[in-house]
Amino acid sequence: MEGEQTDYIWGVLDFVPDTDLPDIRIFCAVHSHNGSCMVIPREGDTVRLYVQLSDADVQDAATGRVDKSKFSPERLLDVARRSLSPFTIAAPRGVEWWTLYIIGQRVASKYSVQERVFIAGDACHTHSPKAGQGMNASINDSHDLAWKLTHVIRGWAGLSLLKTYEFERRKYAQDLIAFDKRWSALFSGKPRTDEDADGVTHEEFLEALKTSDQFMSGIGVYYAPSVLTRMTHQASAHGLVIGQRLHPHIFVRAADARPVDIHDMLPADGRFGVAVFAGDADTHLATLAHSLDTLLRRHADQRGGVAAVFNVFTVLARSKDDVNYTDVPELLRPHWSKVLLDDTDMFGRSGGGGYDAYGIDRARGAVVIVRPDGFVGTVAPLEDLSEIDEYFSSFMVETQS
Amino acid sequence: MEGEQTDYIWGVLDFVPDTDLPDIRIFCAVHSHNGSCMVIPREGDTVRLYVQLSDADVQDAATGRVDKSKFSPERLLDVARRSLSPFTIAAPRGVEWWTLYIIGQRVASKYSVQERVFIAGDACHTHSPKAGQGMNASINDSHDLAWKLTHVIRGWAGLSLLKTYEFERRKYAQDLIAFDKRWSALFSGKPRTDEDADGVTHEEFLEALKTSDQFMSGIGVYYAPSVLTRMTHQASAHGLVIGQRLHPHIFVRAADARPVDIHDMLPADGRFGVAVFAGDADTHLATLAHSLDTLLRRHADQRGGVAAVFNVFTVLARSKDDVNYTDVPELLRPHWSKVLLDDTDMFGRSGGGGYDAYGIDRARGAVVIVRPDGFVGTVAPLEDLSEIDEYFSSFMVETQS
Repeated sequence: MEGEQTDYIWGVLDFVPDTDLPDIRIFCAVHSHNGSCMVIPREGDTVRLYVQLSDADVQDAATGRVDKSKFSPERLLDVARRSLSPFTIAAPRGVEWWTLYIIGQRVASKYSVQERVFIAGDACHTHSPKAGQGMNASINDSHDLAWKLTHVIRGWAGLSLLKTYEFERRKYAQDLIAFDKRWSALFSGKPRTDEDADGVTHEEFLEALKTSDQFMSGIGVYYAPSVLTRMTHQASAHGLVIGQRLHPHIFVRAADARPVDIHDMLPADGRFGVAVFAGDADTHLATLAHSLDTLLRRHADQRGGVAAVFNVFTVLARSKDDVNYTDVPELLRPHWSKVLLDDTDMFGRSGGGGYDAYGIDRARGAVVIVRPDGFVGTVAPLEDLSEIDEYFSSFMVETQS
Repeated sequence: MEGEQTDYIWGVLDFVPDTDLPDIRIFCAVHSHNGSCMVIPREGDTVRLYVQLSDADVQDAATGRVDKSKFSPERLLDVARRSLSPFTIAAPRGVEWWTLYIIGQRVASKYSVQERVFIAGDACHTHSPKAGQGMNASINDSHDLAWKLTHVIRGWAGLSLLKTYEFERRKYAQDLIAFDKRWSALFSGKPRTDEDADGVTHEEFLEALKTSDQFMSGIGVYYAPSVLTRMTHQASAHGLVIGQRLHPHIFVRAADARPVDIHDMLPADGRFGVAVFAGDADTHLATLAHSLDTLLRRHADQRGGVAAVFNVFTVLARSKDDVNYTDVPELLRPHWSKVLLDDTDMFGRSGGGGYDAYGIDRARGAVVIVRPDGFVGTVAPLEDLSEIDEYFSSFMVETQS
């Protein structure tokens, strides 16, 4: 793997605290002259503390690794206590779990050998655990690889589709490590004071936390253009980013007026999502249904039919008072649950504003193609669906007619 | 049991429908000249239909009971089809379950023999199944009896507490049957037309549905005054009804700013809830904590302590920006989760307006005593907590000092 080991040594402590710190049940980063400390509330009354250590003596000189036997949870709690002062903290019920680690920031140079052998997760990237990205990165590596393998093994796509695995996920790991370096440096650095002009201000720290939110949540992860992410009609849904995950949003289901997050319309079942934002009219629906179906059949007919390859649903820019789900042609709603409305729920608490949030014109509409991993693959204007055909033709094998 | 059998014969049918009725996934009551029909969407794609029958021939002349062998699900579906016309409905995958029934409306004359033998649920009341009250009534009978038995068996309350079981639950069953009669008559009646001036109008039907909402949900169930429901200070929380369940409401937890329904603060664990609405100030909190604790100890000291008998928590009329949960004396918050604020969550989607909804003055506050079954037992003004002592003294045995 390529990369380096940082000098930051951290301790982790899980326990039920007895403390007068009022923020003990809130995720918080304590940045003090006595070392940094992060508070993460866990299930029940347990809290996890990440504690920065300055004790070089816990590192084994020969291997460079930390030697847990040279430390103890009591000593770790003492460090936390200094960091959290003047608040007090104790572990009257003992410590549930603890560890020490040094952050290594490395990425594998290759993720596969000839698209025949692949590595994923910790095997290809290591970084700080603090932003909770380790498991998320590994699951997403595996999911990315899994759906692509499935399409290739079924004979739906050629072997070259698998090249996009390293292309997308190695770049992501590099982004993650760049993020991690910036984050770790800020977090491990000393606070800014009159004496230490190089220190980190509270405002810098807060700003970094805020801007990294999208990346940490996975919504901000971005894949550069490839056969799987085509930017041609980005303008037709300018609030979404082709190459990023579809943003979550609450819509209202036409059949029963219940609020539904669009993410729940897109289960990870290996199919491509075809979200038909059909706009605010209904006169064009029959023609639209027919054109789209003809086009999708071309890639689905010998693969079990449209419903086996594509997850088609419709989102109308209309009110729940005006629409019956039965108004929408069956080709655009293969099930009663497949018609959504850009409207609020019956209590007015959620929903509405989806077309605006996605940057889709309410009159003109658009079709958004969502990859099996939830990333936006491409967008097509309703008046030019050929983009959809070109998108799938670029990596799917032609069906025999 | 006392009561009568109605003339209404109903059929029930569970199946996955093929239909063009746009409201098939919404609870709906179809009131037609071809008989009434109720649509209840179930899990997955299954729908339950309640179908009114006019076929007297399914009744066994000798027993008065319905004879299922004289009918069939196909015939039932035919009746539904006429009721739902001009929409079509079919059961291409067959019928999952079906039955027929005649509504009997009866209540047992006694619920117990000398507070030694008790009956609950179907053993003491029968009624129409359509408002979903059967299981709810039975669970609530049992819960009412269970917590009272527990208190008596532990020696905390005298045997006379058990008299309130029949007092409260038999009256409820009578209310339920009155509700059921009105409801069944409306539902089984013909629609109003020019020819039939005695028929039921659509508006009457809708109005009945709306006003019965509270009763059906359980929030409107009312217990008359007794040792367990004392009305003395009803005015101190005039938005609540002593003798009804505490109304659900979202508050914000001071420790982590998360929205919490007050019902989730009151698990059915046999303890009395002591909800301290301490108002919008904090200068009086120490005195209040001390007075309340002294008073509760009187009924708890030899019973495992305050936390074994009472579930104490505090609700402040203050903002999450101004309050640390540690500001509240520990006697008023035995756990970090026990301080709520009458404020909105961080997204402004839920919470706020709780004091107003409960009719509690934000400056003067009140203590609301919630029975182990969730019903409001009594209310005490902060400046006169003696009501709480009198309430518990009226049915709890005095502890030896």
